[in-house]
Amino acid sequence: MLEYSVEEPLNREPKLHDLVSNFITEPDAAYDRNHGPIPHLNASTHRVSVYGLVEKEISLSIDDLKSLPQHTVICALQCAGNRRHTMRTKLKEVSGIDWFDGAVMNCVWTGPLLLDVLNQAGVKVDEGKEAHVAFSCFQTPTQDDEWYGASIPLSRALDPKASILLALEMNGEPLPVKHGAPVRVVTPGIAGARSVKWLDRITVQLQESNNYYQRHDYKILPPEASTKEEAEKWWDRVDALQDMPVNSVIGIPALKSTVRADEDGMIEVKGYALPSGADGPIARVEVSGDEGKTWVDAQILEDESVREKYKGVVELKWAWALWTARVKVEKGKARKIWSRATDRSGNSQKAPSEVEWNFRGVAYNGYGEVDELEIV
Amino acid sequence: MLEYSVEEPLNREPKLHDLVSNFITEPDAAYDRNHGPIPHLNASTHRVSVYGLVEKEISLSIDDLKSLPQHTVICALQCAGNRRHTMRTKLKEVSGIDWFDGAVMNCVWTGPLLLDVLNQAGVKVDEGKEAHVAFSCFQTPTQDDEWYGASIPLSRALDPKASILLALEMNGEPLPVKHGAPVRVVTPGIAGARSVKWLDRITVQLQESNNYYQRHDYKILPPEASTKEEAEKWWDRVDALQDMPVNSVIGIPALKSTVRADEDGMIEVKGYALPSGADGPIARVEVSGDEGKTWVDAQILEDESVREKYKGVVELKWAWALWTARVKVEKGKARKIWSRATDRSGNSQKAPSEVEWNFRGVAYNGYGEVDELEIV
Repeated sequence: MLEYSVEEPLNREPKLHDLVSNFITEPDAAYDRNHGPIPHLNASTHRVSVYGLVEKEISLSIDDLKSLPQHTVICALQCAGNRRHTMRTKLKEVSGIDWFDGAVMNCVWTGPLLLDVLNQAGVKVDEGKEAHVAFSCFQTPTQDDEWYGASIPLSRALDPKASILLALEMNGEPLPVKHGAPVRVVTPGIAGARSVKWLDRITVQLQESNNYYQRHDYKILPPEASTKEEAEKWWDRVDALQDMPVNSVIGIPALKSTVRADEDGMIEVKGYALPSGADGPIARVEVSGDEGKTWVDAQILEDESVREKYKGVVELKWAWALWTARVKVEKGKARKIWSRATDRSGNSQKAPSEVEWNFRGVAYNGYGEVDELEIV
Repeated sequence: MLEYSVEEPLNREPKLHDLVSNFITEPDAAYDRNHGPIPHLNASTHRVSVYGLVEKEISLSIDDLKSLPQHTVICALQCAGNRRHTMRTKLKEVSGIDWFDGAVMNCVWTGPLLLDVLNQAGVKVDEGKEAHVAFSCFQTPTQDDEWYGASIPLSRALDPKASILLALEMNGEPLPVKHGAPVRVVTPGIAGARSVKWLDRITVQLQESNNYYQRHDYKILPPEASTKEEAEKWWDRVDALQDMPVNSVIGIPALKSTVRADEDGMIEVKGYALPSGADGPIARVEVSGDEGKTWVDAQILEDESVREKYKGVVELKWAWALWTARVKVEKGKARKIWSRATDRSGNSQKAPSEVEWNFRGVAYNGYGEVDELEIV
């Protein structure tokens, strides 16, 4: 009797080796994070409504969205809890799915600008007044709420440089069902939780979204919120996480692997780096094989085929940077390699010991690290 | 471009004189309380989904709902803030729409039992475990949230005596648009806020609804929550208001009116009385013309035409009781009349001085009272 079919939620992380081997992540090679069953919607009847503090409420079909100017962005989307496992193991136990370093994808997204859609409705908020744009998906229930929703600050939504899309395509193909077909939000630089899939409604409002996932979980609680009970007192006092911090991760070699050094005692290291929020692109990645005593610059790779394909169409500000480096590591067991990224605005990663723990283990950005390597 | 039309929210209270003159309230004579624009939905495509902790998710059309056994209930629905004006004026300023004593309607509702719909989906919650049934209307945004939702305890929903309906008809006619067409929840005895109109989804879940209107406003905060700032600390610590308390109201004579006493110094008084939650029907109504020194029993009216029409079909447990009394009041100015109702379970009203103030002015049930009468 269901008018659309649903699949159970899918939470999956790709292998890092595969992830860092392709500048553009294929839909089936990307991490998946859903809070409820995946709905299969009918694109010919689906509509997105724009409500709230607007001059005129509008309701747009997928064809309406296609008839607006289409923009293409290459952008990384990552889970707020990407690298949670590292915070858990380096610092202290945290609450949430045990993501390693691969809860991220770097893809090509195409669709109208959120800004164009908002302009069509006409935002009715006094300039300078704090407001929010909420995204709702009523199509599927979630584990912790009756539906899924999120919001971002209106100022970001109205920034023409923010490149926020209502994406209809992923990597040049129609958006796959599990990534939000027929239309999802893509908020470059912002935690993936705000890039709402299977989008139903956009609301301009004075408050943040009231949805569970905006009010809970994706927030950096202060360290004193160290238990579930303590956390309960803090959820309403802390703003929702928006921009993700600068980060880098080592994908190759893998944790706990055995690596043969070359004649000069050097090994090959490969990874990805992400800028902080809107502060991209990545300017520099450094790698250390001696726990930070010395650092060498990594080479940032540019995928020529992608650059060629989207020549003049896209900038790489929102994309991840893949990088490689050759670094000297002493032979023996229990060796470590670190990576450290700095973005165009000068934001840089901290040593793991300087990172502040938070209850949900979100936004961890200590140095990229692989340890327990055996160098032979 | 809207796929359905919407009207602005309507908040309206009828005159008490009219309200207490008819046992069954006509749709256009009833109070209206909406938190957002009124949606005009297409009954032929509208569906209600049942989700969450169920054996099998189902999605029902209006025809599916009509094909289930139909039940008829006469029940009063009232705003949690009914009589807020009295709390405001007798006790202290409160926050909310300034309802007088008329934010209530007594109507005939027809439709399938919520219980039958839940049984069709199969509730999957261990017996004795606390759970909730959430009702969602995603059709229209609200002032304080992106949508409207509420929940009631699962135990109430599963009680075959609770007579909770998914109402398709009001007073024997198709549900009017402003009262929730094509389908609304009717939760007898429970605050009107939980009787969600324009129903989209029913979710069986372990938590209360996360909607703003379940988390805020319709709660009895403790007296120390006396400012908006103080209230903020309390919303999450207090359960949502469910059952409404026993109550009575005097509709005739009107406040501040001039009334001619008869030869015996008596005047005619008329009003309504409501039982507490599921503790109906009303057993007794008393009236006092001397500020509680003496009380006389009112006569509870039974509308014979209604009783005839629904003979054997409905009980009057959930209905209001209309009543009349003759009471002695001394001639002069600034006179008062009080009323006091007691339900079948013995719940009775308190003197206004004994009622505890709460920030939102909800669930006020001090004696019914008209004051500033001039008796000539």
